[in-house]
Amino acid sequence: MDQQKKEKFEKGTLITYRQDIKVLDATIRDGGLINGHNFEDEFVKAVYNACLAAGVDYIELGYKASKKIFAPSQHGPWKYCDEDYIRKVIGEKKNSMKLCAMADAERTDYHTDILPKKDSILDCIRVATYIHQIPTALAMINDAHDKGYEVTVNLMAVSVVTHKDLFEAIELFAKSPVATIYLVDSFGAYYPEQVRELTSEFKRIASGTRKLIGIHTHNNQQLAYANTIEALVSGASMLDATINGMGRGAGNCALEMLLGFLKNPKYDIRPVLECIEKHFIPIKNKMDWGYSIPYMITGQMNQHPRSAIKVMESEARDKLLAFYDQMNEEES
Amino acid sequence: MDQQKKEKFEKGTLITYRQDIKVLDATIRDGGLINGHNFEDEFVKAVYNACLAAGVDYIELGYKASKKIFAPSQHGPWKYCDEDYIRKVIGEKKNSMKLCAMADAERTDYHTDILPKKDSILDCIRVATYIHQIPTALAMINDAHDKGYEVTVNLMAVSVVTHKDLFEAIELFAKSPVATIYLVDSFGAYYPEQVRELTSEFKRIASGTRKLIGIHTHNNQQLAYANTIEALVSGASMLDATINGMGRGAGNCALEMLLGFLKNPKYDIRPVLECIEKHFIPIKNKMDWGYSIPYMITGQMNQHPRSAIKVMESEARDKLLAFYDQMNEEES
Repeated sequence: MDQQKKEKFEKGTLITYRQDIKVLDATIRDGGLINGHNFEDEFVKAVYNACLAAGVDYIELGYKASKKIFAPSQHGPWKYCDEDYIRKVIGEKKNSMKLCAMADAERTDYHTDILPKKDSILDCIRVATYIHQIPTALAMINDAHDKGYEVTVNLMAVSVVTHKDLFEAIELFAKSPVATIYLVDSFGAYYPEQVRELTSEFKRIASGTRKLIGIHTHNNQQLAYANTIEALVSGASMLDATINGMGRGAGNCALEMLLGFLKNPKYDIRPVLECIEKHFIPIKNKMDWGYSIPYMITGQMNQHPRSAIKVMESEARDKLLAFYDQMNEEES
Repeated sequence: MDQQKKEKFEKGTLITYRQDIKVLDATIRDGGLINGHNFEDEFVKAVYNACLAAGVDYIELGYKASKKIFAPSQHGPWKYCDEDYIRKVIGEKKNSMKLCAMADAERTDYHTDILPKKDSILDCIRVATYIHQIPTALAMINDAHDKGYEVTVNLMAVSVVTHKDLFEAIELFAKSPVATIYLVDSFGAYYPEQVRELTSEFKRIASGTRKLIGIHTHNNQQLAYANTIEALVSGASMLDATINGMGRGAGNCALEMLLGFLKNPKYDIRPVLECIEKHFIPIKNKMDWGYSIPYMITGQMNQHPRSAIKVMESEARDKLLAFYDQMNEEES
């Protein structure tokens, strides 16, 4: 137990590695925000197999969204992560990579749609919540935990939350049965210095519990990777990444970068590079993600990327000055 | 003097700004490595005017390369930065933005080609040197200083230099008349943690002198901007950037990002966005720069990007796995 505790919070160097580090691939879940969760089964299978071969610890496939709120005719299958559909695509699970689905507070019929763990192919439920939804999130955490799942909580858009509210929320999570508390930079607004400070503060609040701290970043300012490794240096253990950085808008921390950084010999970058070459480069003309100046502008302004996504999908994507001026006008 | 000294090393926050910070635009110099220093005069003029309007402190236009070593028939005018040519393109200087040219150790006829300051339009000579060229670099620093210039020294490829040699070199520079000592991450190999440590060490060695520390980064691992602001946080004052990150291979820290981060009201991001929109987006099909996975691979391996540049210029640019395997074979 003492050894385990020590390992949990030991400090790595650029040569050694930390046993407590876990990598979570969120390609299909975050990438699904670009294409309405409509991926070819083959693509999902390829991502799954690449992550498995690369030694990734967790993979997140999508959401457990309410079919009452989101009509299945309007969204792809990974919006719901039905048990049968997952099994159809990846087969029966015969390995140790943990399967996750995200459950949004207030947008999930969790009582009915999240089955008891023994009847599910899923291992881990990731409860995503905004600060004003904390009571619902706590109920969902308890529900998933009682059903037998490992549970993480992903507190979103914290860059627009006061530290007082934020730390109060973290204290509530620290008392809940959640396994991992995530710092989520939804707007790609944080600088490395802020990520170090917040990670340290999350760790301080959760100290004495066995809970891990997680980090989920966005690449609006080309800081997704930097912020991920800085969170790691400051004590985060669960690191989210996506293959080729695929994800809404500017995308996420690229898995290939992260695996290249981590020194644990169990991780292998080759299957990820192969997957990018075979499956990501061919769809680059159909799906658009990654750093662009409009995302930088919303990131620097600490705003939701929706305005940038809208302009990037329009004819005006190269009208940088007009976009900048428009954003500043909206602000004032 | 005390006040000045205090300002030189004060610590900024995300709200305040540091008076000692200076921004250097190296677009034409580093971008010239992509196109053999052949820019349209109009492009150079547009970059110059954008930097001026943006409040940039220094602009670097190219090299003072030896015409004996590099035949002028083989290279564009910004390889040499002839006084007449600079004046022809930007006119007589009537503002406070300082003009720089880079002088490579052992590849510059500095005795003859660098004129006395009073006869030159240039304000600052940037001596670029590898660790084995230090004696020549020191002679060039003294020569340029004696001629009346502000001088910086850019010690390149330090990520493959032992710390013992590196710090000995910095000690020599600290005793020279150089104004700024630069940490240059030529291979885009450094992580933020290393940049913080090295910047602090450079500052420690130069403490007691009036010398500033500078930072010049490359974007192989999408860390150019992160490393620049981390160097800043650790005490660097001279920050190199390029418009749209233009520069060899993966490019550099983007000026628009840096100006968006800096809080000094004298800096204005708008002219830079306008310049990108009008002059950079239209040439994207003619000049290739910016992050790609082959650059990430050479960066993570702490190698010169030449292999990555070569593959990116070839039909095999998307053959990621073959490139990765080839690089690992060469290593062993």
